[in-house]
Amino acid sequence: MLSFVNDYSEGAHEKILKELLKTNMEALGGYGSDRYCESAKQKIRKACACKDADIYFFVGGTQTNQVVIDSMLKRYEGVIAAESGHIHVHEAGAVEFTGHKVLDLPQEDGKLSSSVLERYLQTFYQDENHDHMVFPGMVYISHPTEYGTLYTKQELEELSGVCNQYQIPLYLDGARLGYGLASADTDVTLPDIAKYCDVFYIGGTKVGALCGEAVVFTKNNTPKHFVTIIKQHGALLAKGRLLGIQFDVLFTNNLYIEIAKHAIDMADVLKKALEEKGYHFYIKSPTNQIFIILEDQQMERLQKNVAFSFWEKYDETHTIIRLATSWATDKTAVDALISVL
Amino acid sequence: MLSFVNDYSEGAHEKILKELLKTNMEALGGYGSDRYCESAKQKIRKACACKDADIYFFVGGTQTNQVVIDSMLKRYEGVIAAESGHIHVHEAGAVEFTGHKVLDLPQEDGKLSSSVLERYLQTFYQDENHDHMVFPGMVYISHPTEYGTLYTKQELEELSGVCNQYQIPLYLDGARLGYGLASADTDVTLPDIAKYCDVFYIGGTKVGALCGEAVVFTKNNTPKHFVTIIKQHGALLAKGRLLGIQFDVLFTNNLYIEIAKHAIDMADVLKKALEEKGYHFYIKSPTNQIFIILEDQQMERLQKNVAFSFWEKYDETHTIIRLATSWATDKTAVDALISVL
Amino acid sequence: MLSFVNDYSEGAHEKILKELLKTNMEALGGYGSDRYCESAKQKIRKACACKDADIYFFVGGTQTNQVVIDSMLKRYEGVIAAESGHIHVHEAGAVEFTGHKVLDLPQEDGKLSSSVLERYLQTFYQDENHDHMVFPGMVYISHPTEYGTLYTKQELEELSGVCNQYQIPLYLDGARLGYGLASADTDVTLPDIAKYCDVFYIGGTKVGALCGEAVVFTKNNTPKHFVTIIKQHGALLAKGRLLGIQFDVLFTNNLYIEIAKHAIDMADVLKKALEEKGYHFYIKSPTNQIFIILEDQQMERLQKNVAFSFWEKYDETHTIIRLATSWATDKTAVDALISVL
Amino acid sequence: MLSFVNDYSEGAHEKILKELLKTNMEALGGYGSDRYCESAKQKIRKACACKDADIYFFVGGTQTNQVVIDSMLKRYEGVIAAESGHIHVHEAGAVEFTGHKVLDLPQEDGKLSSSVLERYLQTFYQDENHDHMVFPGMVYISHPTEYGTLYTKQELEELSGVCNQYQIPLYLDGARLGYGLASADTDVTLPDIAKYCDVFYIGGTKVGALCGEAVVFTKNNTPKHFVTIIKQHGALLAKGRLLGIQFDVLFTNNLYIEIAKHAIDMADVLKKALEEKGYHFYIKSPTNQIFIILEDQQMERLQKNVAFSFWEKYDETHTIIRLATSWATDKTAVDALISVL
Repeated sequence: MLSFVNDYSEGAHEKILKELLKTNMEALGGYGSDRYCESAKQKIRKACACKDADIYFFVGGTQTNQVVIDSMLKRYEGVIAAESGHIHVHEAGAVEFTGHKVLDLPQEDGKLSSSVLERYLQTFYQDENHDHMVFPGMVYISHPTEYGTLYTKQELEELSGVCNQYQIPLYLDGARLGYGLASADTDVTLPDIAKYCDVFYIGGTKVGALCGEAVVFTKNNTPKHFVTIIKQHGALLAKGRLLGIQFDVLFTNNLYIEIAKHAIDMADVLKKALEEKGYHFYIKSPTNQIFIILEDQQMERLQKNVAFSFWEKYDETHTIIRLATSWATDKTAVDALISVL
Repeated sequence: MLSFVNDYSEGAHEKILKELLKTNMEALGGYGSDRYCESAKQKIRKACACKDADIYFFVGGTQTNQVVIDSMLKRYEGVIAAESGHIHVHEAGAVEFTGHKVLDLPQEDGKLSSSVLERYLQTFYQDENHDHMVFPGMVYISHPTEYGTLYTKQELEELSGVCNQYQIPLYLDGARLGYGLASADTDVTLPDIAKYCDVFYIGGTKVGALCGEAVVFTKNNTPKHFVTIIKQHGALLAKGRLLGIQFDVLFTNNLYIEIAKHAIDMADVLKKALEEKGYHFYIKSPTNQIFIILEDQQMERLQKNVAFSFWEKYDETHTIIRLATSWATDKTAVDALISVL
Repeated sequence: MLSFVNDYSEGAHEKILKELLKTNMEALGGYGSDRYCESAKQKIRKACACKDADIYFFVGGTQTNQVVIDSMLKRYEGVIAAESGHIHVHEAGAVEFTGHKVLDLPQEDGKLSSSVLERYLQTFYQDENHDHMVFPGMVYISHPTEYGTLYTKQELEELSGVCNQYQIPLYLDGARLGYGLASADTDVTLPDIAKYCDVFYIGGTKVGALCGEAVVFTKNNTPKHFVTIIKQHGALLAKGRLLGIQFDVLFTNNLYIEIAKHAIDMADVLKKALEEKGYHFYIKSPTNQIFIILEDQQMERLQKNVAFSFWEKYDETHTIIRLATSWATDKTAVDALISVL
Repeated sequence: MLSFVNDYSEGAHEKILKELLKTNMEALGGYGSDRYCESAKQKIRKACACKDADIYFFVGGTQTNQVVIDSMLKRYEGVIAAESGHIHVHEAGAVEFTGHKVLDLPQEDGKLSSSVLERYLQTFYQDENHDHMVFPGMVYISHPTEYGTLYTKQELEELSGVCNQYQIPLYLDGARLGYGLASADTDVTLPDIAKYCDVFYIGGTKVGALCGEAVVFTKNNTPKHFVTIIKQHGALLAKGRLLGIQFDVLFTNNLYIEIAKHAIDMADVLKKALEEKGYHFYIKSPTNQIFIILEDQQMERLQKNVAFSFWEKYDETHTIIRLATSWATDKTAVDALISVL
């Protein structure tokens, strides 16, 4: 069975496991107070070209979104997201669980445009009844998006501009950030993200770690007593070393980008083959997720040899499926998939 | 200044005030345990032709929606509503505050159709990832809707059918229920509502009371320890008599429907005059809310003599406004408004 | 049956009902924007000798406590209260429902002492693990307390001093404030309360109103967008006039204190008779609540003619009961009770 | 520096790391659907002698407590705990964050007695006002307790009896369960715990794992849609394998108990030495936590060579400290500590 079902099927990059082994019997402080967390933070600050960045490690993406959003919103505020945003669709209402509404806006290719955002904010403040409405208190975007697409630097700058104008923070969910940064079709760097976003996270779980996401506050804007807030949400890891060591390795010698680049290379080989064979793409994604439209019978045949994700029905007789490559994808598996197609 | 701004501008129907005076010095049990609450419940049961109905009184509509929805949903469930639903737009996120998502679906004339609902539920359960999504746990409709429109008996029956099929309760927000029942253009009666809905509320605040909404559970489905839940939400009124007496009066000699009928009559006079004068209606409402499209200059002139509600911008040069009649609307005010128009 | 069961058994003072009648057909703005609310606020500011006081009206006490506490606490904070505090014992967990812990401290005669408070705060900040604990973010006291007792001016000053030192607000629950202010055994005035407390509420429900509590923020410290927060909690009354008119009447010509004084007078007559007849007091209360210890058989006999509250078992054969007078207590009822005793 | 500060200072038992390495490149299903989770569950079922046990893996203890308690309580219920219980004191209000009160009862040696529990429940249901109180909906105990003490089999049976009588579940927090089971001074086995508790968790973080706690529902009582609830709380780990593999290793060849036994042995050596040297024990703990009372100067001297936990001030001149051994404690470190003492 060839596995292209997602980018979190394997364990961790071997360098991570080696470092976990090497440091295993050191007695270290708990809850993120250890020297590996500190080292990882320094390396991330450097990679972000943001020397004042304040960094915290979390175990998973939904947890990260929940804690960051809840702690940055005031209680009468909600978070704006594209209607396709992960927090709106696939996190089981984790944001609402903390008492905040997700204010969903129309998306295009999975992205929220600054013009759609601006129009919404203008209309909200013009409405004389807005005291009876949820105040927009944050903008959430994902990069890459749930469709594998990417914001351009100009788009980020414009979103940031609207957010600044209305004084609400811009938050970027980087669950797959590595694959975005490693794409050939992007002009966005990690320092750009640190510049335009008020807070974002660098995803580890889907880019080579066993678990782990690194939240970066870029504007001296960490919520007060953030450690207590994390604990209150049940999200404080006792052995913080597990996260610190992983990010320390990922941000040593550019490993995070290099392993993401491998996933992009594998996706490119696959996309080229799909194009040549005349497959229809549902969306043009420059990252590690490939969305194609299959006849249902064709899909059923493919299922016998390949694990992939159903995305949604396209029409009565066609279905959209997703093939994902990752840091762990083997070239021989890609070749095998191509010969099956 | 002529007041057509809403249907809760005046105090209460005089019969209510008289009864409050008359019973004032009786020492009664608190928290809804008094005999006026009991009498009102009996009269409502009779009016609903639902002898097992379990009834609770609340002070206001948002409070009622919050407590009913939160107490009937399981914690992993959200509530389905039309995107124009009051709980989705104008209750400051009171539902999300209790941890539940509002799952908004497209509306037509303010209504949720059974076909839109069914398609949503089908798709949800077909999605293999639905374990990571908010489960649909209730359907919320308003009747009259926020646009003053009404469901037909058949539409209610169909919605109820879909809800039964998926075993989720149908909840009807009747903030303006009297105006719906008193409309000439409806085939829906209070017993119909009790039959098709699992729970609904009869609005008092907008139909002649100082405050108060009567929640009716129709299927022996009151949440366990509901009084404690009400208390926990800060919604238990110490002097429950205030609500009991009001509903006792409103449901004596058909007063609730009669005073609502007056509002409908006044609205009909107004609508006829508007039509004759060539005004454009934004939506055809058979109840006490009238939505018309005005040129902005025309609107500014009208504002000098008449209080009304801005609804929303129609286009660059036009605005939708709302004129509301009520149980308290004076015929001379209607005539005066017509002469101003 | 003689009713001494509580102080919210009757409706409202007749002057309130008359004013409700008189103003009934005026068309007024909703949600507290009417002129009666404004007038009541001015009168309360004057009575408090606090010209910058910001005032909001709520329907009931638990609701008031829930909204004030939740809106003033940061999300990692809890509220300190005496273990006998109403929010800790008899509000069905309404504070916890909003996500905040009640941090209970030992009480004496229902009161929280400044020394107990200070020791707790000192210990908290000395604890090196306090990042894993709920931060104390507010101090809640009730005045009169749940046992009818009163803080002295010096005790309030000392509590306020400790709160200032630790920069946490002091909140006073004045559900029965009138009875405290009207007591002969107090040196605390309304301006004292406004001076020492950061926020407090003046109870109406138990002192002559149909419903209603007036929250007073005394230090320019109203939470931002407080109206939206109230709405979000389901606590915003549409016809705010109902509350505004009541408090406007209560704060005209000192009515609030005068009717409370009547309750105190009635309680004094009763206490004197109880003393003379050799009854045992559980606690010495200078307000309208009287706690006496009865033999169980004695209690059962009394129950036949008098409605009162069971408080708690005193020992195997005795029970503590509460007799409450109020603004509505009739002298003939007091005399009748005395002759029964 | 000798480390006796806690039992989660080192990484994981080497067998766990080896297995993580060995299985690293297998493509496995996410969110706990992999075969290692399944294997671990089978082994735990067997160790518990509870073939119907339903098992879920979590990352940490506070998270586990939060999700289990919130999902098993109805919304009007709170959880009973000893006043020294971890959820009441050191989890930053994580339970209250989900809307539920912790109902704290007096403890003895960190334990909740069945008589204290029963008296509380009796009194609650006798109170005629209990509709305005938080209903007791679960009993939380920790075993070992926060003081390292253990319940006897009879005590568990009695607690279970009271819980059954009042139909509320008994939940056991086993963060350090291994150390309890491996103690020489216990008659409680894992099957006993499965028999008497409705739900409990087996702690991994403090007993040899990098992270991880295994929740065991023993009475076919898993909350409906529990996976969605976990996701909603931000607690669902994408690479569930990380937890499954660790527990699979820990429950192979009795490893969990064996490594816990080592901690007990080291603690026994230490306790014996402390006794011989005349140290005063604050409490007699039969597990891996040792509480001793030191003069403050003595403590300061010890601090130079040994890392330990401050517990609390004993009196003006003495302090209680905690020394903890663990699966990772080296005999040479114990010997070194003894020579320092």
